[in-house]
Amino acid sequence: MEEWDEVEVPNNVKDIFVEMKNTAELMVDLAYSAALFKEKEMAEEVLELEEYLDILNYHLMVRAVLAASRSLEEAEKITSILQMAHSIDEISNAAADLAKIVLEEKIHPLITEVILESEETIGRVAVSPNSVLVGKTLEELDLPTNTGVWPLAIRRGKRWIFDPEEDTRIMPGDIIIGRGTKTALEYLKEIARGVIKVMPNE
Amino acid sequence: MEEWDEVEVPNNVKDIFVEMKNTAELMVDLAYSAALFKEKEMAEEVLELEEYLDILNYHLMVRAVLAASRSLEEAEKITSILQMAHSIDEISNAAADLAKIVLEEKIHPLITEVILESEETIGRVAVSPNSVLVGKTLEELDLPTNTGVWPLAIRRGKRWIFDPEEDTRIMPGDIIIGRGTKTALEYLKEIARGVIKVMPNE
Repeated sequence: MEEWDEVEVPNNVKDIFVEMKNTAELMVDLAYSAALFKEKEMAEEVLELEEYLDILNYHLMVRAVLAASRSLEEAEKITSILQMAHSIDEISNAAADLAKIVLEEKIHPLITEVILESEETIGRVAVSPNSVLVGKTLEELDLPTNTGVWPLAIRRGKRWIFDPEEDTRIMPGDIIIGRGTKTALEYLKEIARGVIKVMPNE
Repeated sequence: MEEWDEVEVPNNVKDIFVEMKNTAELMVDLAYSAALFKEKEMAEEVLELEEYLDILNYHLMVRAVLAASRSLEEAEKITSILQMAHSIDEISNAAADLAKIVLEEKIHPLITEVILESEETIGRVAVSPNSVLVGKTLEELDLPTNTGVWPLAIRRGKRWIFDPEEDTRIMPGDIIIGRGTKTALEYLKEIARGVIKVMPNE
């Protein structure tokens, strides 16, 4: 269990819990993206995130049980935290199962069609050098609010940035993998191509 | 099994599959909303959607097995469809478990905090009579693209509209339950209050 020591886990129950929810949601999105684009590296990232989530879940359980033992009245309500953590863990397991199909190369063409036809779909957005996105951080761009697209990952040359941070700066040639409606993705593509020259917040 | 006949199921494998993915995603969002706002009616909707998803899953399996029996080469790839359907079903079960916690009234205050502090959170947006939203359909508004907020449900007086359609028209006094970043939700709230007078697409 040596590798467990190497992972940084947030300090308190709430932050661990928030991190679990965000991680599980990212895993689902990345698993669909991996299936759509047949990206094995992305599928492997999902499996790594599953291990991380198991560690978070373990730490949450330890802390919750400690808290429950201190106050018997609290114990029943704390059970609801463990139940919700279990639900989040189930979601992450489902994402991992999906990622395993990608790694086994058994994706039926229908699966990619289904992801493309969902209400919220996944798109690849190529950033051209003359786009207004270039040189700005994700925080400055706030793509979810301004375009309706949630950035899940960025491919920069051969390197992947999964779950990019607020201070990640968009570079020319970046491929953004994003989740949104078809309209939102089309809109971001126009901005990334340099056809639309202003962001809605400018 | 009489009630199964009453439910309309899409005609082909792809449409059933798309409907399953959309339904499971809605269930997760509604389950979080139900937990945040302690809305039992919303939690019950999640459990009803779970039954609907089971029916969809059954129809998908029947059709997939039929297709597999027609062509042995296809059978292995069709297995990946059943695996993905299973993952979607697992996600929907997790959402249903969450909804059950709401119905059992055992929500720990931390659960609501965690939903509020997630990257994507849930908000209630009250529509004032002088808002530009009033009288427009969801299709015209395209809130996901234009504000980054995904409408999950609308409360109109005592009535709930879950998973509102594209032709649903916003009325004064509507309460929109939406998913998005904190910034996106704040932005939609300003529009709904009538403070911001134009939509970004105008």
